[in-house]
Amino acid sequence: MPEPGPGEVLVRVLWTSVDPYQRGRMSTARSYAKPVEVGEVMTAQSVGEVVESNDPRFESGDLVVGALGWQEYAVARAGTLRKLPNGMPPQMALHVLGTNGLTAYFGLFDVGQPRPGDTVVVSGAAGAVGQVVGQLATIAGCRAVGIAGGPEKKADLLNFYGYDAAIDYKGEDVGAALKEACPDGVDVYFDNVGGVISAAVYARLNVGARIAVCGQVSQYNLERPEPTFHPGLLVVYRARMEGFLIYDYSHRFGEAIPRLAAWVAEGRIRYKEDVVDGIEHAPEAFLRMLRGENQGKQLVRVAAS
Amino acid sequence: MPEPGPGEVLVRVLWTSVDPYQRGRMSTARSYAKPVEVGEVMTAQSVGEVVESNDPRFESGDLVVGALGWQEYAVARAGTLRKLPNGMPPQMALHVLGTNGLTAYFGLFDVGQPRPGDTVVVSGAAGAVGQVVGQLATIAGCRAVGIAGGPEKKADLLNFYGYDAAIDYKGEDVGAALKEACPDGVDVYFDNVGGVISAAVYARLNVGARIAVCGQVSQYNLERPEPTFHPGLLVVYRARMEGFLIYDYSHRFGEAIPRLAAWVAEGRIRYKEDVVDGIEHAPEAFLRMLRGENQGKQLVRVAAS
Repeated sequence: MPEPGPGEVLVRVLWTSVDPYQRGRMSTARSYAKPVEVGEVMTAQSVGEVVESNDPRFESGDLVVGALGWQEYAVARAGTLRKLPNGMPPQMALHVLGTNGLTAYFGLFDVGQPRPGDTVVVSGAAGAVGQVVGQLATIAGCRAVGIAGGPEKKADLLNFYGYDAAIDYKGEDVGAALKEACPDGVDVYFDNVGGVISAAVYARLNVGARIAVCGQVSQYNLERPEPTFHPGLLVVYRARMEGFLIYDYSHRFGEAIPRLAAWVAEGRIRYKEDVVDGIEHAPEAFLRMLRGENQGKQLVRVAAS
Repeated sequence: MPEPGPGEVLVRVLWTSVDPYQRGRMSTARSYAKPVEVGEVMTAQSVGEVVESNDPRFESGDLVVGALGWQEYAVARAGTLRKLPNGMPPQMALHVLGTNGLTAYFGLFDVGQPRPGDTVVVSGAAGAVGQVVGQLATIAGCRAVGIAGGPEKKADLLNFYGYDAAIDYKGEDVGAALKEACPDGVDVYFDNVGGVISAAVYARLNVGARIAVCGQVSQYNLERPEPTFHPGLLVVYRARMEGFLIYDYSHRFGEAIPRLAAWVAEGRIRYKEDVVDGIEHAPEAFLRMLRGENQGKQLVRVAAS
């Protein structure tokens, strides 16, 4: 068992998360964070229980979330941890009340800047971020159109997450389906995937459209990215394309988390979890998620609480 | 001679303009405006003298600017014309006090949003828009770095337009030269050209950078655009890329033109003109400009005033 030093906390990890951004940590391509070296602990958000604390802000038994990685016990500096509120399943801090929900909140509201009546298209719409984006778009008074792979996910978008329209990119012609689903064009595009799916959305943008670039998961395992976007398009539509990372919004997490929690409590944000048991299955869970085989937020249960 | 109808004005054209956007009017690719059909008058901003007016706002002898096209006499609806102030060479309404200056003003200030101390890189920097952008960047307290083709243009950027650094993309390794010219990275990129030159700039963006997409002139004559930009880049830098057209800012031309005129009067905006005589040479002047052979704003003198 590792020993916490001064100002550090020892945490027993209960849940850990797999997310597309981790693909970037497994590559030496230039990114916003250093890659994980062979032999290092994989970067991940995890939830756990404090075992021993050398900081007055935490005591044994507290439930916390932080960048604890894929491991069973983690030592962390106290300032990097956030205490979970009581009365909610702790793993929610890994999705709708954590990184995924915050990504949806700031990416849609701050970057996408939707106005009531706007048509908001979301790719990767059944993913952990995308499912929240659609529900936030509905809360914002917009028409939400989701794109996901397979008839089960499409049905979930319509019947569980409340999208106004949904497209199965594996079974439908995305261009034709978008034309039907977006009779007034696309005002906001929340893009998780890039590539040819995004190309179909670019073709239906309205003048003044905003593209919030959250991820490009279709491109992460390619030798070279596909040439599906050209900047001249932004002149034609006088459109804006903007990338973002939630770490730049950390000073406003205290604004977003209570709002997300309230919407969950009111049933206006619903979620599904897809749980794999055992930390030894984290790589497998990660690959499932990259292939889109998960139904709901992909989690790894590391230990029973 | 055409006859002006009610509310129309007959104008004798003195000067007309050639600009990269006209390339789009010669193509059937989807754009923000319809293409010009074979046999129609080529779209262009022109300056002329009122010959006959059926509108109380204009009288014979007034100097006006408007979308009069490549022709010697034009009939226009009065509401589409703007009267020129006295005491300036009329052709300035076709560049620094017209479309080019307005494009530089709104593209840099509103889209690029430069802050004093920022490094602003301009491609096509010796062109009719680019030369004004660099000088506006200097006025805004920024470091201006220009990219243009050939040693004469590079010398002009440094010695005439007051760029802090300049790069000759025909004679230098743009990537290496940018690294030297932008030791603190790039905060704003005003892009007129796209393609491989822009790719070198993308590689030096700072977190939070803004890319104002004015044009992609390197791409206009290609069968397919070059795959030099991928949206994932915007996530790495949390950067924004935005296209614009000055027509969306027409309600603010009255703000910009007096400021531009004052900066010209103070010598803070300098300009050069490259004049071709005779409307029959307009196509040739257009091709010179597309090839970058002009030194200063390419104009066509249609008639002596």
